Amino acid sequence: MKQFISVNDVSNINTLVEKALAYKADPYKDRTLGADKRIGLLFLNPSLRTRLSTQVAAGNLGMEAIVFNVDKEGWALEFEEGAIMSGSSVEHIKDAAPILGSYFDILCIRTFPSLKNREDDYSELYISQFIKYCGVPVISLESATLHPLQSLTDIVTIKEVLSGNAAIKSKPKIVLTWAPHVKALPQCVANSFAQWINAWGEAEFVITHPEDYELSEAFTRGATITTNQDEALKDADFVYVKNWSTFKDYGKIYENDPRWMLTDAKLQLTNNAKVMHCLPVRRNVELSDEILDGPNSIVTQQAGNRVWAAQAVISEILVSSK
Amino acid sequence: MKQFISVNDVSNINTLVEKALAYKADPYKDRTLGADKRIGLLFLNPSLRTRLSTQVAAGNLGMEAIVFNVDKEGWALEFEEGAIMSGSSVEHIKDAAPILGSYFDILCIRTFPSLKNREDDYSELYISQFIKYCGVPVISLESATLHPLQSLTDIVTIKEVLSGNAAIKSKPKIVLTWAPHVKALPQCVANSFAQWINAWGEAEFVITHPEDYELSEAFTRGATITTNQDEALKDADFVYVKNWSTFKDYGKIYENDPRWMLTDAKLQLTNNAKVMHCLPVRRNVELSDEILDGPNSIVTQQAGNRVWAAQAVISEILVSSK
Amino acid sequence: MKQFISVNDVSNINTLVEKALAYKADPYKDRTLGADKRIGLLFLNPSLRTRLSTQVAAGNLGMEAIVFNVDKEGWALEFEEGAIMSGSSVEHIKDAAPILGSYFDILCIRTFPSLKNREDDYSELYISQFIKYCGVPVISLESATLHPLQSLTDIVTIKEVLSGNAAIKSKPKIVLTWAPHVKALPQCVANSFAQWINAWGEAEFVITHPEDYELSEAFTRGATITTNQDEALKDADFVYVKNWSTFKDYGKIYENDPRWMLTDAKLQLTNNAKVMHCLPVRRNVELSDEILDGPNSIVTQQAGNRVWAAQAVISEILVSSK
Repeated sequence: MKQFISVNDVSNINTLVEKALAYKADPYKDRTLGADKRIGLLFLNPSLRTRLSTQVAAGNLGMEAIVFNVDKEGWALEFEEGAIMSGSSVEHIKDAAPILGSYFDILCIRTFPSLKNREDDYSELYISQFIKYCGVPVISLESATLHPLQSLTDIVTIKEVLSGNAAIKSKPKIVLTWAPHVKALPQCVANSFAQWINAWGEAEFVITHPEDYELSEAFTRGATITTNQDEALKDADFVYVKNWSTFKDYGKIYENDPRWMLTDAKLQLTNNAKVMHCLPVRRNVELSDEILDGPNSIVTQQAGNRVWAAQAVISEILVSSK
Repeated sequence: MKQFISVNDVSNINTLVEKALAYKADPYKDRTLGADKRIGLLFLNPSLRTRLSTQVAAGNLGMEAIVFNVDKEGWALEFEEGAIMSGSSVEHIKDAAPILGSYFDILCIRTFPSLKNREDDYSELYISQFIKYCGVPVISLESATLHPLQSLTDIVTIKEVLSGNAAIKSKPKIVLTWAPHVKALPQCVANSFAQWINAWGEAEFVITHPEDYELSEAFTRGATITTNQDEALKDADFVYVKNWSTFKDYGKIYENDPRWMLTDAKLQLTNNAKVMHCLPVRRNVELSDEILDGPNSIVTQQAGNRVWAAQAVISEILVSSK
Repeated sequence: MKQFISVNDVSNINTLVEKALAYKADPYKDRTLGADKRIGLLFLNPSLRTRLSTQVAAGNLGMEAIVFNVDKEGWALEFEEGAIMSGSSVEHIKDAAPILGSYFDILCIRTFPSLKNREDDYSELYISQFIKYCGVPVISLESATLHPLQSLTDIVTIKEVLSGNAAIKSKPKIVLTWAPHVKALPQCVANSFAQWINAWGEAEFVITHPEDYELSEAFTRGATITTNQDEALKDADFVYVKNWSTFKDYGKIYENDPRWMLTDAKLQLTNNAKVMHCLPVRRNVELSDEILDGPNSIVTQQAGNRVWAAQAVISEILVSSK
């Protein structure tokens, strides 16, 4: 693997999932693979799980991980080609990226969308410019439109549940449902989950959301899409709950009906479904306490698996770089 | 030791003090005790000595220490059970803590009081919720009402001075004196010092402060308390200087008489007392330059000992977790 | 070497440059030199290259590097002797520095000038107080008036270019040219470059800037100084581009003529000069895209060399501390 920006960088999802689960079983089995290698974790936006799990994963492989909060410890970067830099941005990515590439063997970067201009965000200018200019393998820690480490984790968790649960049919029904929120959020997690589940192909995949919340077909193609949540939930084995803002009339909150929040009553419609969420979650807005504190929630297991997904990806890139 | 939140977690103070002094004599004697263990240092508030000394201590034991400034690198956490999270807090401790517990073997956390509501602060909601939900041993890096790593350090320093100073009587007189300040500060350091000195029991212990600055009896019980500073200082062997805001009419600054600042003239009343302070100290407000720069101040020695106190505590917890 | 604050701490520049280039050829050749040693990187101001390159350099020598953003993770420090600390500064350097010195074997510090008061800035109060009170070797990561790690890097880069380029005369012509900017910047990099090139003595050294931008003679003495940029650039082998604010009428922006920006047309005047800049650079304000993206720019090579300069300096100090 030369980079990890989307599912398109993965030759075989199941092989990568197995690799992650093998690290979960034996975290230190490749403890010298990353010896004398450095990984830089660059954050243009805040992070908790992604930062810590990636740092832990790199440590398990014997790499030195260095975190740099670009937005707080550094300064504003410029990404536009040809910019006359007389404003607030202090350094161009064309100058910063190759230097970061000279200090590190792998660079990881998190950069959120503006949610102001769809074309700009969906061009993935920021992470693309990093990749173009840094000269070393890049791992996305969430970009403007995708969050592949989360999605790999999601499939790791689904497969882990499946392997221990004979009650679930071999081709599980997975439902991605929109949930209410108080802020306009990116489409990243939803886009990425859709992209990965479709590419994986081993599930019956349904997406449900209120009208006006259609995601980009580039990611959802292959899924069944409905605005009838009850219908979607029927017989589901996994329910992935997530809010996102509108894609078409970009970055807005239209309908925000609290009835879209998953409750125990709605869970009755499912096949005793496991409930997933990438976290952070707004309790009693996106998901009810009763669900999160109940037996069907696997959000802690899921977040714990972030380490093994990151470790598998870093490991693959280290092996490819040899 | 299963956790380190207050003196109540310590079975034998003197044994723990000896352990700290043994690390001071030989910092790397247990350099492999923490191999393949990770310690997370979570800060909801700023820190200098506590952060750096704990990080150094963990390194001496061969642990990987990862610092995470929750307030700056992450986002606002919610601690109230049942909260409808439609406000500014982004993630509930019930969701964050177990995940942090899955990434780390030990979690350390600093969380200051609001000083707005006494009942809330003294319920220690924040650190209690962390402990309840994270599933791994927790070390307090200062909580709403206590600062046990500081207090352990204080006794380490007192015993270190005693062992080299035959001029001090075997049961030294230790005075905790209030000092003026420009800001309303927590009672943590004073509460905790009182709690530890009382539990230790090997000193004559006097607390002095202006009227209205009474501390909680839960911590001071056993000490002699007086509003006459001169009387208190008489024949003291150690004077611990510290400001705190009011406990009864909570979080206020009432009297702020500069005459409560310790000076060389006042030191004449003592038995050539050693002067202690947890730092940071407002020079010439809390303590005069003449004291801090003079021969009686042991504040630098005291702050240096933070490393060994932290190392002893982490070591105890590592041994207990085996 | 006992400290690294200016060129005056260096007994032989060429020997130090050779040391840096030897580390570039073999980064891990002294991988155990720093075993059981800790280096503290203290930032009172933001940093990208300086922080990361120093952290990497320390790692290459087997040291544990701990970064502490004093301004963000800690609190405001007081540097004035005798201050009555009733204002916003929380801790005096006299109290903080010796403790930091007790936690670390080497301390590195970055502290920018205020640009408000020339006398204060040029007294180097901040870094001098650190040195005075911390008790361990100090490395400047840029102080109020100098940036010696940058200047060492600059000579490393110049010598690297010279050794591979027979077309440059044995005593190269090096031009330091002022460039426009949108903000009032310190004189540090220019002062320090002038000080080092003059001390090195192996170049024909010319400084050019608009009227009113004269630097302190303490650093420039020995260089040819002219306000005629074209004249200065003639036959130059290296052009170092940098903005600085006024020194005489302190910290101002007077003339800001965009014609002072280096362009390809101006480069025609030189001996196919290599173009240097310490970064960050404001593209199309300080330096044009055509220069930065063209074959004459060596800014990426230069910034990459920051690691080896830092490694050579840390190594020298470790050896001297034994």
